[in-house]
Amino acid sequence: MMLKELREAVYEANMELPKRNLVTYTWGNVSGIDHESGLVVIKPSGVEYEDLTPEKLVVVDLSNNIVEGNLRPSSDTKTHLELYKAYPALGGIVHTHSPHAVGWAQAGRDIPCYGTTHADYFYGAIPCARSLTPEEIEEDYEKNTGTVILETFRERGLDPVAVPGVICRNHGPFTWGKDAAQAVYHAVVLEEVAKMAMYTITIDPQTPPAPDHVVNKHYMRKHGANAYYGQCCCPFAPSIILSFVKLFIVGA
Amino acid sequence: MMLKELREAVYEANMELPKRNLVTYTWGNVSGIDHESGLVVIKPSGVEYEDLTPEKLVVVDLSNNIVEGNLRPSSDTKTHLELYKAYPALGGIVHTHSPHAVGWAQAGRDIPCYGTTHADYFYGAIPCARSLTPEEIEEDYEKNTGTVILETFRERGLDPVAVPGVICRNHGPFTWGKDAAQAVYHAVVLEEVAKMAMYTITIDPQTPPAPDHVVNKHYMRKHGANAYYGQCCCPFAPSIILSFVKLFIVGA
Amino acid sequence: MMLKELREAVYEANMELPKRNLVTYTWGNVSGIDHESGLVVIKPSGVEYEDLTPEKLVVVDLSNNIVEGNLRPSSDTKTHLELYKAYPALGGIVHTHSPHAVGWAQAGRDIPCYGTTHADYFYGAIPCARSLTPEEIEEDYEKNTGTVILETFRERGLDPVAVPGVICRNHGPFTWGKDAAQAVYHAVVLEEVAKMAMYTITIDPQTPPAPDHVVNKHYMRKHGANAYYGQCCCPFAPSIILSFVKLFIVGA
Amino acid sequence: MMLKELREAVYEANMELPKRNLVTYTWGNVSGIDHESGLVVIKPSGVEYEDLTPEKLVVVDLSNNIVEGNLRPSSDTKTHLELYKAYPALGGIVHTHSPHAVGWAQAGRDIPCYGTTHADYFYGAIPCARSLTPEEIEEDYEKNTGTVILETFRERGLDPVAVPGVICRNHGPFTWGKDAAQAVYHAVVLEEVAKMAMYTITIDPQTPPAPDHVVNKHYMRKHGANAYYGQCCCPFAPSIILSFVKLFIVGA
Repeated sequence: MMLKELREAVYEANMELPKRNLVTYTWGNVSGIDHESGLVVIKPSGVEYEDLTPEKLVVVDLSNNIVEGNLRPSSDTKTHLELYKAYPALGGIVHTHSPHAVGWAQAGRDIPCYGTTHADYFYGAIPCARSLTPEEIEEDYEKNTGTVILETFRERGLDPVAVPGVICRNHGPFTWGKDAAQAVYHAVVLEEVAKMAMYTITIDPQTPPAPDHVVNKHYMRKHGANAYYGQCCCPFAPSIILSFVKLFIVGA
Repeated sequence: MMLKELREAVYEANMELPKRNLVTYTWGNVSGIDHESGLVVIKPSGVEYEDLTPEKLVVVDLSNNIVEGNLRPSSDTKTHLELYKAYPALGGIVHTHSPHAVGWAQAGRDIPCYGTTHADYFYGAIPCARSLTPEEIEEDYEKNTGTVILETFRERGLDPVAVPGVICRNHGPFTWGKDAAQAVYHAVVLEEVAKMAMYTITIDPQTPPAPDHVVNKHYMRKHGANAYYGQCCCPFAPSIILSFVKLFIVGA
Repeated sequence: MMLKELREAVYEANMELPKRNLVTYTWGNVSGIDHESGLVVIKPSGVEYEDLTPEKLVVVDLSNNIVEGNLRPSSDTKTHLELYKAYPALGGIVHTHSPHAVGWAQAGRDIPCYGTTHADYFYGAIPCARSLTPEEIEEDYEKNTGTVILETFRERGLDPVAVPGVICRNHGPFTWGKDAAQAVYHAVVLEEVAKMAMYTITIDPQTPPAPDHVVNKHYMRKHGANAYYGQCCCPFAPSIILSFVKLFIVGA
Repeated sequence: MMLKELREAVYEANMELPKRNLVTYTWGNVSGIDHESGLVVIKPSGVEYEDLTPEKLVVVDLSNNIVEGNLRPSSDTKTHLELYKAYPALGGIVHTHSPHAVGWAQAGRDIPCYGTTHADYFYGAIPCARSLTPEEIEEDYEKNTGTVILETFRERGLDPVAVPGVICRNHGPFTWGKDAAQAVYHAVVLEEVAKMAMYTITIDPQTPPAPDHVVNKHYMRKHGANAYYGQCCCPFAPSIILSFVKLFIVGA
């Protein structure tokens, strides 16, 4: 992808955040990567969405050197870079402070998979990554936020394609996808299922997660090799089949 | 009704879903049936509402054969067809993931009839249909979703005209009506009473349902043979009188 | 006031309900009275707000005879008339199903006066009137809804000017004011304080009501003889002073 | 700053309140001060936002004498003046009845610092100032509301620059900033974190506050001497460093 196109796509994805009511002021950022060149386009720090233009986006390499742009990149840039370096399947990443997702993050609890709305996009609970230690914060806060997300997925045997998001304790959500647009889509879904899950435990605090066979069915009819939701096959299907193979081995 | 008119009516009903804030992205679908020809018009799967046109709607017969249209019908089509085949009174059906209704569905609890807003449209609690078994999912998930809804109404002795909706456990609501527009109307009402019911138990978790005489009065002043709400008599009145006769026999 | 002006004022007040997000579909109605002629202008039953015009409003006398108009008046008309007959200070009345007010009504609990937002408009808790008995419903549902509201205020020694609203158990709120516009204003306030009160007990279920001296101060700085909120003296002030005299006697 | 510019800035800040959904009707006010002249520009009492113009704002001196304007100033003016007299760092003050903040105020509880959204702007819990005594209300309600806020900050050793807001028990929030615009910004943040905090305890009532090292890190990356959020250094930085020195001494 040409850098110009990536810039445009990341700009459009950023502008979706206020349109979808996911951000107050500047509390969010979207990035996108061109894996061939290793260049990442990301929102500048603290710039209001109404003032944002494609030209104001910042281009950095995977070592966090600014390649293009006169503004500082998002203060969360290093978190994005850690995820891009570890997960080649990711084409876009989003961070927001969407309120229901933050509610679960602040309570320090995974968002349980209570139903099909969740299972259509996230295969199982959305994990809550632990808070950083004082040492991790001191050393490099934003980089280690990424490190702790990777640790969470590794220790739980989760595949980032099957679970395209996380909530960071005392902080908020990160989501990702094959590109910046899909990462935003997942940010919208995460907030919506966080809201529905809060309603669910308001109605019955003892609600158990949805049965495995319901979760499997819904995830697979949208993302499996034989997916039949929508008008075309899922672009992530091969990766997902692989991830399920891995999950079954890990689970065994 | 001409198929062209049905197409137009189902299109308009679909477009009400985003307008009434009942759907995020493509999480909903409306269908309508022409009982004479046995043809059903339904939203195509995974198409964004802003891209929807009457021409993109899909026409299927009651055996789920595509009669008109180049797109796949909604993945929930078989659920709609099961309901149309069992209930000739239904002219339109809606499925959404509206958040408060999903909250009750995920908690696996009927929505109690706490007051007149509910009783004006739903005669008694809105039932929560059970989750499907692994075997039912394996055999035919969407068809059996319909089967389990029918089982719920049959076992509880409910009339689908007096209770024009259901919530499916771990999933979400289906509503219906004499046509697609009324089915959407009931989807809006169901979400609104689901919200009010959640507020009610937030204020007092021990709240009992509204007394029978209040529920009867409100349902009957809108839908009974002597209905006096609105400007004309209720088009469902004969059917409803019949359904009450049945309910009293079942209840006896 | 000329009937034409009253019609216009009641029309404007009705149109405020959807603008202020107080109604879904047709779930609300506003009336206004000309005490000299004893004529009441009220919304017709079941007419959508977008289709409403001043001409469609119905004029009835205090015995519920239609004086002008081709449409049926609101099914709640007799409730309005009971209140107008008992309380000459009322110039307008509103009924809605606004969701937080309904939550408290369905839970069957008074809305406690937790703070100054409430005390600025309602002097003390907003009472929850009891459900009607089967006999009261059978005899005349809408008239007796008014009767039970009057009973509630009489038994508790409340002045309808100092407490310009009520929630009816299992039903919803009625508010009133010196004219139709103020009645709508109070409907907005009631919904807002119902929401704040629900938030309050969500945060701490044991929250006590605000201290009397806070409630008195806030109510009086807006409505007392020496009111100093806003740009002019309160038009209800003499009536309110009287009502406080009565309250102190009743309370003694 | 010229008075004309201050008037314009305070007008713009007032108009942000309805735009940001912080006020119902006239339930809010913004003021700004020119410290050199000791003149304060504030919203007139009870004037609807849609009718507000820069010319209608009222100018008072720090002794609450009207210097310019034909309308009465906000009934909360004396509260603003108490804060301006005590805290020279304040350039603007806002009072609202935003609903989640009111929920915490009515429950009489500090808003705990549960996460980074909060810590980015408020260094620690947002304090809940006590209710006034009958004597304090009798003597001078609005002035003593200010006095009790000052008492709260003094007794807890809080710096108003590091904690730019308070909730007053049974009442609602006051926020402030270097100017009227920043005071409104903090009012928006306070409402948002009040909402997130309510969600948090809805999900888990036992949630502990965020660890100190997380709070310190986030506050400092935005406001410390080495702040790196946004595109320029923080204009309050020197004041904040001072405030932290004080806090550590007080805390020792």
